[in-house]
Amino acid sequence: MALKLYGNPRSGCTTRVLTCLYEKHVEFELVPVDLFSGQHKSPAFLAKNPFGLVPVLEDGDLTIFESRAITEYICKKYTANGTDDLLCSSDLVKSTLVRTWVEVEAHYFQPAASPVIYQSFVAPLRGLPPDQKVIDENLEKIKKVLDIYEARLGETKYLAGESYSLADLHHLPYIFYLTRVEGFSGKMFGERPRVKGWWEDISSRAAFNKVVEGMKLEK
Amino acid sequence: MALKLYGNPRSGCTTRVLTCLYEKHVEFELVPVDLFSGQHKSPAFLAKNPFGLVPVLEDGDLTIFESRAITEYICKKYTANGTDDLLCSSDLVKSTLVRTWVEVEAHYFQPAASPVIYQSFVAPLRGLPPDQKVIDENLEKIKKVLDIYEARLGETKYLAGESYSLADLHHLPYIFYLTRVEGFSGKMFGERPRVKGWWEDISSRAAFNKVVEGMKLEK
Repeated sequence: MALKLYGNPRSGCTTRVLTCLYEKHVEFELVPVDLFSGQHKSPAFLAKNPFGLVPVLEDGDLTIFESRAITEYICKKYTANGTDDLLCSSDLVKSTLVRTWVEVEAHYFQPAASPVIYQSFVAPLRGLPPDQKVIDENLEKIKKVLDIYEARLGETKYLAGESYSLADLHHLPYIFYLTRVEGFSGKMFGERPRVKGWWEDISSRAAFNKVVEGMKLEK
Repeated sequence: MALKLYGNPRSGCTTRVLTCLYEKHVEFELVPVDLFSGQHKSPAFLAKNPFGLVPVLEDGDLTIFESRAITEYICKKYTANGTDDLLCSSDLVKSTLVRTWVEVEAHYFQPAASPVIYQSFVAPLRGLPPDQKVIDENLEKIKKVLDIYEARLGETKYLAGESYSLADLHHLPYIFYLTRVEGFSGKMFGERPRVKGWWEDISSRAAFNKVVEGMKLEK
């Protein structure tokens, strides 16, 4: 039975998992969840994820939520499929570096990127004016994170080492949306050539390009 | 060579790792980092962790930051030591549930617990009045998370399943500090008997009791 992914192709966390599924050449069925009508807060959905957020993966009797737990599961279950070992799980040192930079994305990058994207695109869709103060404060935080990435990418080709891993992949949807914010790419990539090169590299992968088609910001 | 843990026994993220080291009976040296004088922002420390936060683990040439990446490393490196498999790594379904509830602690529990602890204890140490609005807003968030835990603990003995895992362990330091906030235990545990029983169980473990001695809130 194919995996079932409950989610929405506009949600960054859903597209993180979609990208991983395509990298690993895993068959799945996408079950759309309508976020604008609040389907993710319905009793049927809360039974799958009590926190009421997409995505959720069902594999037979197993239900998993939290996008980063899902991508790890996919990599561990389908070790022989598609892109070679996004977790570097056969080597403890390498896999620990992947795990460390997965944490960095989760705790420093996304918490700053998310409010910028919300204010720039989601608030206007809901008829609210964007809060420029929130945008500016978080752009400052993103700058500091990207300064650290710029230094890191001078030591290793990818964030966790010499090969493309989940630590890079997890960044794709949120950076993609940020590049749609006016002036972002010029300001952020202009002074950070290594980050620019890294973004061009990871965003040009076939798996992510399959996902980008669904990432619409308009109504 | 023994592991070197750079950190501070008052820091919740440091004590998370200390608890894990004691559970796994791993020898280590604690190298104190003085947070009040800003030692974690010094160039020497930033070379170990560019984000300037404790803890950092050094194992020979390998330097790891982010407490949850460190606990996973300890569990994977010292599989045969101490408490049996806090990661359930021999079983993909069980280990995925551990990973999922590790994410829950990281993304729902700690982000709400942390500001309550900061305002209640750290702000006064720095001569600032606690911001009651921030405390109240985050106590509401904690309640919602604990409601989900109460339901979950009706299905399984621990958060990730029938055995004690990193998903439980990671909660220890922050819940411990929260129980020092006036009225917290009565309000939060009173209506949630399963959460109360779970907290009494996990906080009574010998490994955590070794750590608690250093968790002082006074100057």
